[in-house]
Amino acid sequence: MTEESIQKEELRPWQELENFLEADDTAAVLSFVEKSDADDIRIALNHLSREDRMKFISIANPEDAAEVLNDIPESQAVTIIEDLEASDAATIIEELPSDDRVDILKALDDEDAEAIISQLEEEDSLRKLIQYDSDCAGGLMITEFLSFDQDVMVEAVVGELREKAEKYQKFNVQYIYVTAAGKFAGVVQMRNLILSPRNTRLSEILIRDALTVRDLDDIDELINFFDSHDFYGVPVVNELDEMVGVVLRKDIRETEAERSNIELLETQGIVGGEELRTMSVWLRSRRRLSWLSVNIILNIIAASVIALYQDTLSAVIALAVFLPVISDMSGCSGNQAVAVSLRELSLGLVRPFEVFRVWVQEISVGIINGLALGLLIGVVAWLWQGSVILGLVIGAALCLNTMVAVSLGGMLPLILKKWNVDPALASGPILTTVTDMMGFFLALSFTTMALSQLT
Amino acid sequence: MTEESIQKEELRPWQELENFLEADDTAAVLSFVEKSDADDIRIALNHLSREDRMKFISIANPEDAAEVLNDIPESQAVTIIEDLEASDAATIIEELPSDDRVDILKALDDEDAEAIISQLEEEDSLRKLIQYDSDCAGGLMITEFLSFDQDVMVEAVVGELREKAEKYQKFNVQYIYVTAAGKFAGVVQMRNLILSPRNTRLSEILIRDALTVRDLDDIDELINFFDSHDFYGVPVVNELDEMVGVVLRKDIRETEAERSNIELLETQGIVGGEELRTMSVWLRSRRRLSWLSVNIILNIIAASVIALYQDTLSAVIALAVFLPVISDMSGCSGNQAVAVSLRELSLGLVRPFEVFRVWVQEISVGIINGLALGLLIGVVAWLWQGSVILGLVIGAALCLNTMVAVSLGGMLPLILKKWNVDPALASGPILTTVTDMMGFFLALSFTTMALSQLT
Repeated sequence: MTEESIQKEELRPWQELENFLEADDTAAVLSFVEKSDADDIRIALNHLSREDRMKFISIANPEDAAEVLNDIPESQAVTIIEDLEASDAATIIEELPSDDRVDILKALDDEDAEAIISQLEEEDSLRKLIQYDSDCAGGLMITEFLSFDQDVMVEAVVGELREKAEKYQKFNVQYIYVTAAGKFAGVVQMRNLILSPRNTRLSEILIRDALTVRDLDDIDELINFFDSHDFYGVPVVNELDEMVGVVLRKDIRETEAERSNIELLETQGIVGGEELRTMSVWLRSRRRLSWLSVNIILNIIAASVIALYQDTLSAVIALAVFLPVISDMSGCSGNQAVAVSLRELSLGLVRPFEVFRVWVQEISVGIINGLALGLLIGVVAWLWQGSVILGLVIGAALCLNTMVAVSLGGMLPLILKKWNVDPALASGPILTTVTDMMGFFLALSFTTMALSQLT
Repeated sequence: MTEESIQKEELRPWQELENFLEADDTAAVLSFVEKSDADDIRIALNHLSREDRMKFISIANPEDAAEVLNDIPESQAVTIIEDLEASDAATIIEELPSDDRVDILKALDDEDAEAIISQLEEEDSLRKLIQYDSDCAGGLMITEFLSFDQDVMVEAVVGELREKAEKYQKFNVQYIYVTAAGKFAGVVQMRNLILSPRNTRLSEILIRDALTVRDLDDIDELINFFDSHDFYGVPVVNELDEMVGVVLRKDIRETEAERSNIELLETQGIVGGEELRTMSVWLRSRRRLSWLSVNIILNIIAASVIALYQDTLSAVIALAVFLPVISDMSGCSGNQAVAVSLRELSLGLVRPFEVFRVWVQEISVGIINGLALGLLIGVVAWLWQGSVILGLVIGAALCLNTMVAVSLGGMLPLILKKWNVDPALASGPILTTVTDMMGFFLALSFTTMALSQLT
């Protein structure tokens, strides 16, 4: 029996879960959550219907439900929360870390969000947090941290730690934050707490030159901060120098990874954020079409160059085979250069104003690859159609167009970035439109010039 | 004066650094390192010549040099280490965290690596670490951790902590690892060390059911582990249950992000790993050509379908304008579906055997978008060429081909994954070859059928 046929005979985890939900078997659902790891739960939820997903989250205890919401893509979590009663949603949201709580509330309709917030304990502070842009320190920070006035004794801190041990357990507390007259004053390392006599004042073991970030610092500044400093987290202060939260390195890394994923999707024409196949067909269709419809218009404009040379094409009909090849291959060469530029931009290895430097670095590759590809297609055209002239014309067109494509592909992301246009989104369509037009023009005008030799 | 012209008049950081290196001004170079953040150093190094980069690293003190190597892309760090004398390289490598140390040594030629290893203190343990695959726990772990026998007193641990405070500072020690008769026995939280009287034995405050991973567990298992458990790190044990290191969450997250970046590059035709423009032109050319040359052959094969219908094309030359559009647009629609499948695979939302389910989810989008795009291009063809029949033929071809492309694009990554072929790399070229052939075939055969109406 093959592996696949075995898999087909057993119930898959989500089928099991579906059956439990169908039967309203709460105990079985709870034990399913207990025994499954994040990966299984994610895939199971992805297979349930919208109704079953909601039912599942309502049955699970709030703590587990919060963990599940944390494990699945945010857009899916938001849909589930929308479907729940505000009071049920509030109970679950209460269990999320403060940064995720805020992210979800922000993604909801104002009305839904308001209904939930009004049921939460920390209503006021939440309303404040929601004001922050999600890509700045205030939007990325957690608000679970331990802070004490600098006059407090080590003894009292240890007491507090013991008392609230459970609450702070999951936040990996490594530092005690210290204030003086309400303003941020510095940090005390856990290790120094151990090493100090219990009647020491925090002010005596305080690291006063501790670094902080401002609540309005944006993600780029934070990425740079964690690149330069090997900290697990950094305290966030507001304009009054009051401490408002902690930004954790892991959350910055996750945001960074998320960004590069969105970029990956954009270069492939998935716009408006992540697409999951659990979303409605209409939404998925509409989003994809929004990008495709721009592209088809650009494509028709580019191809209209061919219409200008219909006589040439009628005379040398063999050319029709090579036009799509020239268009595709120039697109491929150009997209390689786009990918390297996007990568170097995101690694901070190149700045948007260095267009000329990038061109110098790309054109050398463009010349080599243009010659190689031009030679290859030229020989194919010659042997296939038995015409050296046709080989020369097509080879020269692809060779030149590869140089254009590679140059443009390298420079375009930098230029778009300088103009504040998203380079991941716009580079591809602009590149292929220009290289298509140029490629058709080169091949057809060269052919026109050589027409007397070709017919 | 515009921003750009101001920038042009000042010396950029790397020009400054170049001048210092030129003048052999060690003090100036050291103070440059002191005052620059990771971002500035990364971009400065990217602008230096290979010789200047080496000179810079030799001048900086080993600790700073190690930090710089940590901040730049690994392939660049490896080139610098290769250029250095083995003894200089060893001094710097000694300062790197154990996981990065091993990564760099593995990337070197065997000879270079051997010359450096023989100069390092922990020669034997390094040779062992190098054996691990870089994508398993043994290859990703750090070996800097604190472990004590379970009979040791809290007092002694605190003493050791005080003594080695500096050494362990940068490793964010959160746990003390405890062994019994040489085997891993459990962990003690820093917090519990604070709370316990100094004459407690570790065995009394030991968490015995602490989770571990095996040294041979692969990256997927580790990603799943950190998804399910909110730990900062996890102890790694070998087949004898001896503790050999700690895998940190941050390193797993970084490896995961690195992976998705490599995937981004592969879908755009950058193969063989990351390309940096500081690499040699020949290497960059060769790598890009290796992918382009496969593509051009696939492209020519696909376009050869056109040659089979030269008579039809001669009769309806207007078709030549629309063939590249059909080919490009089907590629775009298919690539969107590829992107969503790659994303869902990497999020663990879909498994490779669910090809049919994905097809069902894609074909509905394919039908809607196929009808929309087919209608659009059909109307354009009709109005432009004044022929309803031509509009119908071209619209129908694009409509059907979009459905094919979207279906294939959704399923292909799953099928390739099942066959153990890298889906990010192979999906694009296979997709466009098939959709090109199919698109040309549909448009040309429909036209042939309608030929009597069209001429």
